[in-house]
Amino acid sequence: MENSEEQKYGVRKLEISDKGKGFIELLQQLSVCDSVSDKEFEDRFRELSAVGADHVIGVIEDEASGKIIATGSVFIEKKFLRNCGKVGHIEDVVVDSSARGKHLGKRIINFLTEHAHSMGCYKVILDCSLDNKAFYEKCGFHNKSLQMAMYFDHH
Amino acid sequence: MENSEEQKYGVRKLEISDKGKGFIELLQQLSVCDSVSDKEFEDRFRELSAVGADHVIGVIEDEASGKIIATGSVFIEKKFLRNCGKVGHIEDVVVDSSARGKHLGKRIINFLTEHAHSMGCYKVILDCSLDNKAFYEKCGFHNKSLQMAMYFDHH
Repeated sequence: MENSEEQKYGVRKLEISDKGKGFIELLQQLSVCDSVSDKEFEDRFRELSAVGADHVIGVIEDEASGKIIATGSVFIEKKFLRNCGKVGHIEDVVVDSSARGKHLGKRIINFLTEHAHSMGCYKVILDCSLDNKAFYEKCGFHNKSLQMAMYFDHH
Repeated sequence: MENSEEQKYGVRKLEISDKGKGFIELLQQLSVCDSVSDKEFEDRFRELSAVGADHVIGVIEDEASGKIIATGSVFIEKKFLRNCGKVGHIEDVVVDSSARGKHLGKRIINFLTEHAHSMGCYKVILDCSLDNKAFYEKCGFHNKSLQMAMYFDHH
């Protein structure tokens, strides 16, 4: 049972063909994201691929529908602090609204935190709303500080 | 007066010679940072330089003492969200304890946010303690969400 769930909902890295499997539509459930052209997608995909393990996007594909139903990304920040330490930053975690309750979010978070750990990071961080605090606590995170933001006008 | 202050406390990018000007000792006022060897510093400096404008560290050097008295960094995250948008992440902002009250922190933040803006980011974000919230609000930021962290054991 464990194995078949693992097989059915395993996390893999984003592939260039995932645009055709609803990856952008999934992100739209999280925040503003108008249509992205194939060219824009491929250019960004290649930019991110160029930094290799320093920026990884995980996805879960639903075998039955062939759609991407969960995703999240992690990138590795290189510091001078902490003896030239590294920090993993998790961003853009979303589970398809029709696939909630299957613990896919936790699978994505585990995949991303394990990646950060394997890259030698001393910590991994993320920002979330108060509503999602309990979920991340269950994943092993704790509230550390406040996130502050400044939006620019040109968007 | 404005010009001479600007000249005296202008922000410039980190240079490889700044290790000899107390850059690491300044970071130690912020968080854990044991001694970093020249080799470790130079390796990390080159790694960061290799990504160019995608990771910039600003510093203020005190002309009188030749010491680095303020610093902060910003790196540019490339997303698929927000129409393949970009986000600036500000990290590791610190002003020397002997140089507080000269608005050097605000100079550093302005330098970093302007860089993020010039790179086409739609927003710039940072994490801070409750104690520093008012300072960042004066800089134009607002509290957006919670920062969550998970520390790994191997450090």
